[in-house]
Amino acid sequence: MKKHILVVPGDGIGQEVTVVGKKALEKIAAKFGHDFTYDEALMGHVAIEATGDPLPAESLEKMRASDAILFGAVGHAKYDNDPHAKVRPEQGLLKMRKELGLFANLRPIKLFDELLGASSIKPEILKGADILFFRELTGDVYFGERGRLNEGKTAYDTMIYSKYEVERIARKAFDAAMTRGKKLMSVDKANVLESSRLWRETVLEVAQDYPEVELEHQFIDAAAMLLIKDPKRFDVVVTGNIFGDILTDEASQIAGSMGMLASASVGESTGVYEPIHGSGHDIAGKGVANPMASVLSAALLLGISFGLKAESEALINAIDGVLKAGWRTRDIADKTTPADKILGTDAIGKEILDRI
Amino acid sequence: MKKHILVVPGDGIGQEVTVVGKKALEKIAAKFGHDFTYDEALMGHVAIEATGDPLPAESLEKMRASDAILFGAVGHAKYDNDPHAKVRPEQGLLKMRKELGLFANLRPIKLFDELLGASSIKPEILKGADILFFRELTGDVYFGERGRLNEGKTAYDTMIYSKYEVERIARKAFDAAMTRGKKLMSVDKANVLESSRLWRETVLEVAQDYPEVELEHQFIDAAAMLLIKDPKRFDVVVTGNIFGDILTDEASQIAGSMGMLASASVGESTGVYEPIHGSGHDIAGKGVANPMASVLSAALLLGISFGLKAESEALINAIDGVLKAGWRTRDIADKTTPADKILGTDAIGKEILDRI
Ligand SMILES: CC(C)[C@H](C(=O)O)[C@@H](O)C(=O)O
Ligand SMILES: CC(C)[C@H](C(=O)O)[C@@H](O)C(=O)O
Repeated sequence: MKKHILVVPGDGIGQEVTVVGKKALEKIAAKFGHDFTYDEALMGHVAIEATGDPLPAESLEKMRASDAILFGAVGHAKYDNDPHAKVRPEQGLLKMRKELGLFANLRPIKLFDELLGASSIKPEILKGADILFFRELTGDVYFGERGRLNEGKTAYDTMIYSKYEVERIARKAFDAAMTRGKKLMSVDKANVLESSRLWRETVLEVAQDYPEVELEHQFIDAAAMLLIKDPKRFDVVVTGNIFGDILTDEASQIAGSMGMLASASVGESTGVYEPIHGSGHDIAGKGVANPMASVLSAALLLGISFGLKAESEALINAIDGVLKAGWRTRDIADKTTPADKILGTDAIGKEILDRI
Repeated sequence: MKKHILVVPGDGIGQEVTVVGKKALEKIAAKFGHDFTYDEALMGHVAIEATGDPLPAESLEKMRASDAILFGAVGHAKYDNDPHAKVRPEQGLLKMRKELGLFANLRPIKLFDELLGASSIKPEILKGADILFFRELTGDVYFGERGRLNEGKTAYDTMIYSKYEVERIARKAFDAAMTRGKKLMSVDKANVLESSRLWRETVLEVAQDYPEVELEHQFIDAAAMLLIKDPKRFDVVVTGNIFGDILTDEASQIAGSMGMLASASVGESTGVYEPIHGSGHDIAGKGVANPMASVLSAALLLGISFGLKAESEALINAIDGVLKAGWRTRDIADKTTPADKILGTDAIGKEILDRI
């Protein structure tokens, strides 16, 4: 298969882990006889430094011209405590999502058996948990009007959803539910928010087309509680952009570490595949970041954008092999892990690549 | 001490648990020689049924005339799947918060040692965790303008904060931090939201007056993850209304169950004390609800509104005694709990009252 892949490392540990994700794709191409070509583009803080723009036109053009995008992370400490910064790395990310029409963010949460002990949640609560989140990604308070009033002393953001936006993400979630346990949980705050009431009424309408799917509604506060209390109660979950942001980060603890979780953003055109972790300023440059989420992002890319199922599984199996052999990065080590089994990014990357 | 207490049981299990909370106050008054008088008022679904209004004027008057309010919960399944209901139980609650100026919602999260096993989180992660949340309660997307556009096909809510609102809750949180570990975490989403940037800039300004307090900022998604990964990292936390709603429900898992957590809403006038759990329609009427959060709400009421420290501790000790004696409600039982140690609301209520 001939495909053109754009690599967008972004900032911080995004740079470090994406190297491994890309090498994994190269290894797969060699092994399965595919012809993958690659290009690279800037986004985030690195793009601001180089061009003043968090998503330069050239990067966006390259994105449009590619068959799939392997992305790292954006963000930099420099902007976080400067509430007045006009240009921010995250603007690049949000613009990419909007411009490429990536309205559906899929976040599968599944624990590798070997990591049962690495989570702060009890193994018996976790064992068997397997959740697929559909987070809406181009609407909500991320993209509504925002600004200041009252000489800057008041600030607002607009949570806003239109019916068609809810409908298209709900359909994707119901479709997925049909291929899994035929259970869907929709998460909102319909007891308070009008946008959530529109969300709920639309999900209820779409549900008419999926009579076999058992639909459950939860308020976001209750869902955040239940996710820890009883993760096995969750199967497919659909929710809005901000609630999904919160819930999926929280859910990372079910998989042992943020370093193990990949996500796929799909919609109207080229899909973007990325770890759910951020740019990790605290550990950037130290060579200790866990590259597994980037390799798992590559696996999602192969499976979802290219329909290459065996190739996708080869990557997951390689990670499984590394974990079975006892290798860990710092974030997934527990107190039973011998010190000499804890590797840095490159070394564990090599272990992964050797097993593909 | 002579005080007038208003009891507002509200809906569902609110009715069941508040009976026990009130009896605990009566027992304290008898034991410590206080002269507490009581009245009762309607709010929520029960008020809608009786008067058509979730917070009738008469209830609000009684609230204003009381020295403290012991509240249960509001909510009813009937409204949840009806996105078009014009009148809802929750409107009563929100109106009460606004009318009484209850801008600070304090949610202490502390695990009774006996319940270390009841949580889905590992005991070694939990042991020693002790968090005090300050959730802003009269602003944010709960009270901003909301509505429909586009013939009802688009719905919006406004997340909005003014500087003075952030300042007053931040001061309360910094003050509390000074009496505890001198550590404060402020939670926002300043990398995306303008209201969060105002939040952060204001918290940074208030911090100038508290040079001894170590201030940390976290994004809400990271905070939701860290809370499970490492709850001991949290001491005092301050956040907005919706993020606080989510984070504190999630944090209930640190205390073993929602049934163990009380909250205090204070501000400009009479304080309101309530369990953080909701009206629990699924278990309402079965007599199995855990009344401990209501008794702990009474403890907060005595300590915060009346400054009665010994009386407040007497209630906490009574609960501790019940737990030490092995008594449990269903929600805090674990697989080691013998069946004959699991009691319903009234029976465990009696155990609590006997120990005051
Ligand atoms: C970096 C940030 C803007 C982003 C988001 O909130 O969407 C991130 O947290 C994510 O989940 O991809
Ligand atoms: C019932 C609901 C409106 C309320 C809220 O969201 O504030 C509840 O969840 C709470 O936390 O007190």
